[in-house]
Amino acid sequence: MSERIWTAGLVVIGDEILSGRTHDKNIAQVAAWLQVQGIRLAEVRVVPDVQDRIVEAVNALRSANDYLFTTGGIGPTHDDITVDAVAAALGREVVIHPEARAILERYYTDKPGGLTEDRLRMARVPDGAELIPNRMSGAPGIRIGNVFLMAGVPHITAGMLDALTGTLEGGAPLLSETMGCWTAESEVAGLLRKVEKAHEDCQIGSYPFFREGKVGANFVIRSTDAQALAACAKDLRDSLSEAGHAPVAGGI
Amino acid sequence: MSERIWTAGLVVIGDEILSGRTHDKNIAQVAAWLQVQGIRLAEVRVVPDVQDRIVEAVNALRSANDYLFTTGGIGPTHDDITVDAVAAALGREVVIHPEARAILERYYTDKPGGLTEDRLRMARVPDGAELIPNRMSGAPGIRIGNVFLMAGVPHITAGMLDALTGTLEGGAPLLSETMGCWTAESEVAGLLRKVEKAHEDCQIGSYPFFREGKVGANFVIRSTDAQALAACAKDLRDSLSEAGHAPVAGGI
Repeated sequence: MSERIWTAGLVVIGDEILSGRTHDKNIAQVAAWLQVQGIRLAEVRVVPDVQDRIVEAVNALRSANDYLFTTGGIGPTHDDITVDAVAAALGREVVIHPEARAILERYYTDKPGGLTEDRLRMARVPDGAELIPNRMSGAPGIRIGNVFLMAGVPHITAGMLDALTGTLEGGAPLLSETMGCWTAESEVAGLLRKVEKAHEDCQIGSYPFFREGKVGANFVIRSTDAQALAACAKDLRDSLSEAGHAPVAGGI
Repeated sequence: MSERIWTAGLVVIGDEILSGRTHDKNIAQVAAWLQVQGIRLAEVRVVPDVQDRIVEAVNALRSANDYLFTTGGIGPTHDDITVDAVAAALGREVVIHPEARAILERYYTDKPGGLTEDRLRMARVPDGAELIPNRMSGAPGIRIGNVFLMAGVPHITAGMLDALTGTLEGGAPLLSETMGCWTAESEVAGLLRKVEKAHEDCQIGSYPFFREGKVGANFVIRSTDAQALAACAKDLRDSLSEAGHAPVAGGI
């Protein structure tokens, strides 16, 4: 396959993830969403609420990939510094986005206090940015060039991803087929290696588990080529059966 | 506080995380465990099963931190390349560790097939490594210098962390106190900023949520100094109360 592969990086920003207090849900949801867009998530970095560390991660991943996403740090409080850090990374000024201000004015018009100075922080963007709609709460996400700044709260992130669905150029989606076996992966390691070698457009991942007191493994075949995928899946299914390991379609 | 801060990096290895198929649980569990050891998790990188990418992340984070942990890629299959990648990063040969071989021999002695060539892969270590006990399944984790290679399956990782508890030198644990409010964080952003400024040995994180149809936020005060933490927590509690936001101890 000489097809162009589109990639994205993700920077998850927040001390709350690094302290173990909050379990990240955005890596999995951004990863799964990117798959559907035909874009491969190439790397994730989780960094603290420290400007230099955000700048470093953003610059490393935006230059290495077609797209860069961030989650977290775009709220109204003093520890929300993503906009400043990304503006610094891109060498842009931070400005108030007039449309974001109008959105926040409408959103807070019937709420106590109205659009305070702190809330207006959520209209700050790197100069030249566009907005990503947020149908869940007032504050929009931000797009500037190939960089997309999204909320950290997972259901708000989900709404922003939804708004971006189908708008990004991507390659052929990575297709996958999964099968499982109630077999320790160490028993089929040689077989997997052999099947993968015979199908160069495919990759096979092996994911062991321990369930109901028994060991097993799921095997995920991935390819951007549907025919190659089907051929590899057939070969793996047949090889497992012949070796006495009844495969379960779709995984266990 | 001039106290030395001990830091760790974590490299999560695996295509299954980057594809969104598997939800990572190791970041949170390693982060929470490190807190208790008095070690701060400074950065996490999630990288694919590609040797160069693992080498790059391992070298970046082991030199920037006191400790480096990896999860994933130490099983028996062809996609388990963490040992090779870390050996390459450290400039070491890969060798069979005699004690690991003995552990695997015992573990597989009454299992069909015994210690096959594929299973013996799990005794491969970078030359000079020690083992990390694994009480869940046969294959041990690996320690070499300040680098710790652990399993990817979360309950096995947990057992390895348990075996390491109390064995690593760390600084004063980062203490924290949490309080919550049924108040939008945008209403208290100014108050938070003011309280944090008045307590320089403390950091305050603000974590908004949406629950039971209402918005609220938890505030986490962190410090390595118990007295400073208590003073800051009292100040924040009093300031919230005075502003009419009844704080809830321990968070919501």
